[in-house]
Amino acid sequence: MTDTKTAIHEDGSLERLTIDTIRTLSMDAVQKANSGHPGTPMALAPVGYTLWSQFLRYDPSRPDWPNRDRFVLSVGHASMLLYSLIHLAGIEEIDAEGNKTGRPVLTIDDLKGFRQLASRTPGHPEYRHTTGVETTTGPLGAGCSNSVGMAIAERWLAARYNKPDFTLFDHDVYALCGDGDMMEGVAAEAASLAGHLKLSNLCWIYDSNHISIEGGTDLAFDEDVGLRFQAYGWNVIHLDDANDTAAFAKAIETFKATNDKPTFIVVHSVIGWGSPKAGSEKAHGEPLGEDNVRATKKAYGWPEDKDFYVPDGVAAHFHDAIANRSEPLRHEWEALLAKYGEAFPDLGAELDLMLKDKLPEGWDADVPEFPADEKGLATRDSGGKVLNALAKRVPWLIGGSADLAPSTKTDIKGAPSFEADNYGGQNFHFGVREHGMGGVVNGMTLSHLRSYGSTFLVFADYMRAPVRLSAIMELASVWVFTHDSIGVGEDGPTHQPIEHLATLRAIPGLDTIRPGDANETAWAWRAALEDAGRPTALIFSRQALPTLDRGKYASAEGVMKGGYVLADCDGTPDLILIATGSEMHLVVEAHERLIAEGVKSRVVSLPSWYRYELQSEDYKDSVLPAAVPTRLAVEQAGEMGWHRYVGLKGKTITMSTFGASAPISKLQDKYGFTVDNVVKVAKEMLETK
Amino acid sequence: MTDTKTAIHEDGSLERLTIDTIRTLSMDAVQKANSGHPGTPMALAPVGYTLWSQFLRYDPSRPDWPNRDRFVLSVGHASMLLYSLIHLAGIEEIDAEGNKTGRPVLTIDDLKGFRQLASRTPGHPEYRHTTGVETTTGPLGAGCSNSVGMAIAERWLAARYNKPDFTLFDHDVYALCGDGDMMEGVAAEAASLAGHLKLSNLCWIYDSNHISIEGGTDLAFDEDVGLRFQAYGWNVIHLDDANDTAAFAKAIETFKATNDKPTFIVVHSVIGWGSPKAGSEKAHGEPLGEDNVRATKKAYGWPEDKDFYVPDGVAAHFHDAIANRSEPLRHEWEALLAKYGEAFPDLGAELDLMLKDKLPEGWDADVPEFPADEKGLATRDSGGKVLNALAKRVPWLIGGSADLAPSTKTDIKGAPSFEADNYGGQNFHFGVREHGMGGVVNGMTLSHLRSYGSTFLVFADYMRAPVRLSAIMELASVWVFTHDSIGVGEDGPTHQPIEHLATLRAIPGLDTIRPGDANETAWAWRAALEDAGRPTALIFSRQALPTLDRGKYASAEGVMKGGYVLADCDGTPDLILIATGSEMHLVVEAHERLIAEGVKSRVVSLPSWYRYELQSEDYKDSVLPAAVPTRLAVEQAGEMGWHRYVGLKGKTITMSTFGASAPISKLQDKYGFTVDNVVKVAKEMLETK
Repeated sequence: MTDTKTAIHEDGSLERLTIDTIRTLSMDAVQKANSGHPGTPMALAPVGYTLWSQFLRYDPSRPDWPNRDRFVLSVGHASMLLYSLIHLAGIEEIDAEGNKTGRPVLTIDDLKGFRQLASRTPGHPEYRHTTGVETTTGPLGAGCSNSVGMAIAERWLAARYNKPDFTLFDHDVYALCGDGDMMEGVAAEAASLAGHLKLSNLCWIYDSNHISIEGGTDLAFDEDVGLRFQAYGWNVIHLDDANDTAAFAKAIETFKATNDKPTFIVVHSVIGWGSPKAGSEKAHGEPLGEDNVRATKKAYGWPEDKDFYVPDGVAAHFHDAIANRSEPLRHEWEALLAKYGEAFPDLGAELDLMLKDKLPEGWDADVPEFPADEKGLATRDSGGKVLNALAKRVPWLIGGSADLAPSTKTDIKGAPSFEADNYGGQNFHFGVREHGMGGVVNGMTLSHLRSYGSTFLVFADYMRAPVRLSAIMELASVWVFTHDSIGVGEDGPTHQPIEHLATLRAIPGLDTIRPGDANETAWAWRAALEDAGRPTALIFSRQALPTLDRGKYASAEGVMKGGYVLADCDGTPDLILIATGSEMHLVVEAHERLIAEGVKSRVVSLPSWYRYELQSEDYKDSVLPAAVPTRLAVEQAGEMGWHRYVGLKGKTITMSTFGASAPISKLQDKYGFTVDNVVKVAKEMLETK
Repeated sequence: MTDTKTAIHEDGSLERLTIDTIRTLSMDAVQKANSGHPGTPMALAPVGYTLWSQFLRYDPSRPDWPNRDRFVLSVGHASMLLYSLIHLAGIEEIDAEGNKTGRPVLTIDDLKGFRQLASRTPGHPEYRHTTGVETTTGPLGAGCSNSVGMAIAERWLAARYNKPDFTLFDHDVYALCGDGDMMEGVAAEAASLAGHLKLSNLCWIYDSNHISIEGGTDLAFDEDVGLRFQAYGWNVIHLDDANDTAAFAKAIETFKATNDKPTFIVVHSVIGWGSPKAGSEKAHGEPLGEDNVRATKKAYGWPEDKDFYVPDGVAAHFHDAIANRSEPLRHEWEALLAKYGEAFPDLGAELDLMLKDKLPEGWDADVPEFPADEKGLATRDSGGKVLNALAKRVPWLIGGSADLAPSTKTDIKGAPSFEADNYGGQNFHFGVREHGMGGVVNGMTLSHLRSYGSTFLVFADYMRAPVRLSAIMELASVWVFTHDSIGVGEDGPTHQPIEHLATLRAIPGLDTIRPGDANETAWAWRAALEDAGRPTALIFSRQALPTLDRGKYASAEGVMKGGYVLADCDGTPDLILIATGSEMHLVVEAHERLIAEGVKSRVVSLPSWYRYELQSEDYKDSVLPAAVPTRLAVEQAGEMGWHRYVGLKGKTITMSTFGASAPISKLQDKYGFTVDNVVKVAKEMLETK
């Protein structure tokens, strides 16, 4: 309790005082930055306050407690709501190694630095950048889909690790969503999946403010969202007034008492509540203006001249409400975990590794070495074998496909499916929902699972947003994209990726690996798992590829360097053939022919441009010497990006158009992906050089 | 009527005989190709038969009749259903110029060439490739969203051109959708928009067969789809049995009698009906196998040894049913159109141009020439002005934004919004539904409108699939992507595109243009409109850019060649600075400083790589001479692709990481996009060359 509250606030409660503190901090930060979104934090301050102070199981001194409830701000533009909550709750910072730094995550000065260079308070909340931010949001629908992944992760962790008297996992996941989220298809996909899986630990709070950027939502959006969620199998609750904290608390109690479905709470709110711009799109994405800020403070009974004002007692009240409830629970949990390690040493050790984002000793011991084989197998097939070898040793390596597992070969053999009646399952059926799958996989990864999602490479287009977010967040999500070229054959141009390799390689921080045979595939999967701080896209063929004789050619371990000399001539080569994936064996065969004819040829396998670019200049010059400009790259994909390796004097055999529907051999003839053509183009280059 | 039918078919009706012909043609074609999807055509043959024979207003002799009903096969994998219908209906081929070739689109031999190289029957239906295919489908959800655009187009055409006694447009749009479509978010987005717009001319027929590729839909999808569509505001009809053609016909009659909302017909079907694999995922995506084909034919009462068998009378029956109803209507329509041209000569002439995909004389006469201005304006702003100048002269240039029009500046000023109470509106509110918007814009373009959709460049990720399809289909859709770099500023990395320029440039056939000032913007919009057979992505800045003095520098018309020498030195340059968009003025300023210091520098503006690559080698060598390898490219985007122009000896100032949240000037300092840094790097290059 505080002296000032009655003086400045007619309502008189600390609750109301804290809510208005959240509102005014948000207004002030946006005004100071002269940029940002004030209206939604102002509208949802009562919701945030009530959820955090009365319900959220969250110890501000240990924001990394594995069994904490998750709060996802899917309306990422309302970042000042989250920053205000983090500040007032006194969340303590955890560094990249998981150690406490002893400083609060966000001071008032941090709030004053909102949207400034290198501040802890960027425009949209960024995971890893600001402790307490559970996931990076901003692209609409992303947070919603992440929250489904987090809820899935909790169910899986509970199914695997909970034992009688050892309830290690029983947390809930809350997501705060807006009209934009509700219009995005990705949220619809994730919601349908969550309903199917009966994720009763998941609660979405939908801020229905009837305002979009262009004006009222009636311009484009007047469906019955609640009824839609009933159709998905959710429990739906309607609240008339976001300021009615008692009604909201009752709704959350209903959520907590619901055991067979997720809960969807529709909260009708007024954007920019209390301000002269209340209820208008003008309160959404721009500062209110100094006069309006003053007028709003006056309406709140707030001192008009004070910026970033936190009345005495407010922070303590809010912190204590959360910490007094949660800190003892966290201590109990840690004690329980210690006892668990004694009662179930294997599971305890496994859990310990997993929570530290580490892999067990010998995690790759079962990965096969594939014998040379001219017929060989598709990299989707070898990929499936390697995945299965890894999953045996890393039980929390789980994932699935957007309804293409029989084709992407990503099933874990003999393992059950993850379904509402078996939350311990390892095979996930995401449905024909690529974008939703991406968001869900990221959410699972955020909860320490090593998770993967798979589909055809061409449908990576449907899920670019979550792939990008996995790179921004430095998550170890694994994206398995098969059917990686015109090798798809008869399905034709809509199913044949052309530009997709380039579009994935262009994402900063994403390791895109396109292995050329079964042994490169084994190393590609190793590369994907060994680093818990980087996403990987594994690009696999539909068609069978010969398994090279690694006695004759260089070891496939070269994959780890991104590119390596696979086959060589004596002395300085006159020509370098470069390829990835299904074209690797093609250039090897061309190379053998050229060598037989006396041409000094080298073959470079370049499965990961990302890894190759991380190598030293010396190494790179040993693979692609500056002195050898006659370079021919062969890839059944678009040319974009290849000039980095072939330069202005090199050439490529690549795709300059979309593909066509025909059996693969006809397509390879048509587009020049034959040994004959590689040899022919190489000779032409040598003649004219 | 035919002699054979009673002999081979116990049901005895021509209806049943035709339906089984569709089924067996589909089975046989898939079996012969040893690739494809037999099950859905077999299940939906009664639906296709009934819709086409009893309802579809479609003249097989003029499949390009503008007022024909549209039939969209969103389940594109079921292409043999459509090919069988086209064959049996005897649709006549129309060539690229719109002339009749006098041959049927698909003969039995064409069906026998299913999925073979250069056949007219590719794996998934391809627009422009096979007359009668209204849109390219295969990527799930695409056809659904296209159909909404087609229904919108019909409403708009009716609102603009229909007059009392002149009902030129009153066609309906049907889409055949499957479980996959229903799981995809894009279809959900489009359905929500269609409900909002009360498109009563739109009917989706949902094939609910409870089978997905991984197994039963109960693995991932058990929502109440019908209830969901009620929530969207659709009229929902459930049918128990796809074989009950009378019930289906009644449902279509209900659709036709419904005037205030779209109709959703849920048809429960059995995939692979009649075959030993009926009801199994094994009937979905692979041939049935020869024994099963025989067994199925036996079950149908079909001659087991006949392949591609069309009983006497079947084709005539099916053709006549369609043609006898529709051909007179088409003739009446043409007579009406002729009279319309007399009664409303201006509108008639406009309509004639539009249907021929032409632009009116002087269509770009109002496009402003922007005077030199150091302060200048953002290209999103100049883009808005140019769009408005064009829309005045091309009234069917209509489009909108995914709820960002105030930011993308794509509103047509003073024009009404397209809403259920004003189908003549020109401004579209697509809602926060980028993917849906893409599909809708393509659908509108397929009906001859010149349509555009806009959002922030970073959210191009949400709508890659329809952008790609616009390129595959050679549609003139215009994609307006603004906020094109770290110039976005405070919104931070989730909102700052890095890789997106490369990902668009990588799409074959898409003209991606990033103009550098207001006058380049004017030419970019001209480029987008002048060719009706190519999509364009217009990339605009958020921040103001100086308008160059085109007296001093080369004309902005150089945009039409993709790249041009903007500023030059005397004699052969020692250095070429290359830039696009917001970095154009930056390199011009650096150039001026270098020239003043005696450096022989050239500036190349390269707004469209696509157009530049279409130029002659001579022209390209005049812009970027092979003799000048010292080249520095500057672009606030990722480096991918730039080595094509700078080679191995050149450099780039580009983004190698994601951006950050801060005011733009701080970001430009941080990442080196300053005149000082360009000059510094250029000098370093000259010193070491």
